[in-house]
Amino acid sequence: MSGTLWGVGVGPGAPDLMTLRAARLIEGARVLAYPTLAGAPSFARAIAAGRIAEGAEEIAIDLPMTPAREPAQAAYDAGAARIALHLEAGRDVVCLCEGDPMFYGSFMYLLARLRTRFAVEVVPGVTSVAAASALARLPLGAREARIAVLPATLPDDALREGIAAHEAVAILKLGRHFPRVRALVDALGLTGRATWVAHATVARQQVLPLAEAPLEAPYFSLILIAKESDPWL
Amino acid sequence: MSGTLWGVGVGPGAPDLMTLRAARLIEGARVLAYPTLAGAPSFARAIAAGRIAEGAEEIAIDLPMTPAREPAQAAYDAGAARIALHLEAGRDVVCLCEGDPMFYGSFMYLLARLRTRFAVEVVPGVTSVAAASALARLPLGAREARIAVLPATLPDDALREGIAAHEAVAILKLGRHFPRVRALVDALGLTGRATWVAHATVARQQVLPLAEAPLEAPYFSLILIAKESDPWL
Repeated sequence: MSGTLWGVGVGPGAPDLMTLRAARLIEGARVLAYPTLAGAPSFARAIAAGRIAEGAEEIAIDLPMTPAREPAQAAYDAGAARIALHLEAGRDVVCLCEGDPMFYGSFMYLLARLRTRFAVEVVPGVTSVAAASALARLPLGAREARIAVLPATLPDDALREGIAAHEAVAILKLGRHFPRVRALVDALGLTGRATWVAHATVARQQVLPLAEAPLEAPYFSLILIAKESDPWL
Repeated sequence: MSGTLWGVGVGPGAPDLMTLRAARLIEGARVLAYPTLAGAPSFARAIAAGRIAEGAEEIAIDLPMTPAREPAQAAYDAGAARIALHLEAGRDVVCLCEGDPMFYGSFMYLLARLRTRFAVEVVPGVTSVAAASALARLPLGAREARIAVLPATLPDDALREGIAAHEAVAILKLGRHFPRVRALVDALGLTGRATWVAHATVARQQVLPLAEAPLEAPYFSLILIAKESDPWL
């Protein structure tokens, strides 16, 4: 009997925003896997740290700091191969995923490589979008509102169209794209409706009107736009 | 000192898909509130039932079964007034919300009525969209994918445009709109890319290719469409 590959969302950052199911699985895991970036500590692991059993084996999948796809794909190939050895030996592997595994996470790269050979279970998690809208007390979906989730890496036209066509918008992965996205939002006259949230639910979190946001933004920050101020009344 | 109004997401249905924070708050709550529909049992309460303390006071906000807005608004007015009495007396009130409080939830109607007078805290939860994509093993957001969340109550043109313009789409609140939405998805040639999920994570859940879905769909069901089959490789 092969082991099961578990993709487990650990939520946006605060350890108590993981689900009860995720906590139970992490506590019972003998083998864990998670991504790291260029050798830096894993954020997903940090969220789960207090629940990892002593003596658990840990597989860090180290991704290179480059926008090129091939080096990352090679890292996922190597990580999937290491995970497969445990699964073949009948051991479950719990993959820790920031937020939700199916929402812009690295787990999908492992899933794609292993799903035909092994049983897979996915535990959904709280996304950064849900966490940010909670912090901002900003309802995103009310009645017939359409919500768009847009990565900041999109070209200008795609961002402009996406922002214009929806009642509520979340723009993710800001990082170096922040000045460009901010100018686009401003040109659409929506800065007054936009909130910037960085590092949601951890100690260094920031929640600010977009107009008051600093000039630089981390990758783990996002912009929420809600066009109707009281659409639910 | 007034009490705090808590909007607490209890997740998509399985009780262990609520967060540790939600579980702790529900266990400690002396006053709880939740919506009911035309006197039927509350789904949010059912998810939390095992954690509600004996002797806790419960406020059911009973919503009428009608698409008209005024009767629902009157029910929220009355519910907010009952909650306000507790808050004024210094008692916290924990409002139970299916999924995430800021994602098409009834909590926003209470928030709108009470936010200027009382402290409000919101605990994000796992949405039905995250739960459904986990069950279907269907990554929604990969790299530069744009995700649209569309209520099935939208008119045909808005649905058609939204479905066509995004790499990944979630269509919520199907209910009586299911046959119409299904025909729209089919006319766009996307039935083969679409998965139907009903009652995600509870006993009567169903996960099927849209082509194999039954002719009628409950309100708590959704369609996921992912246009690229392996976008992450």
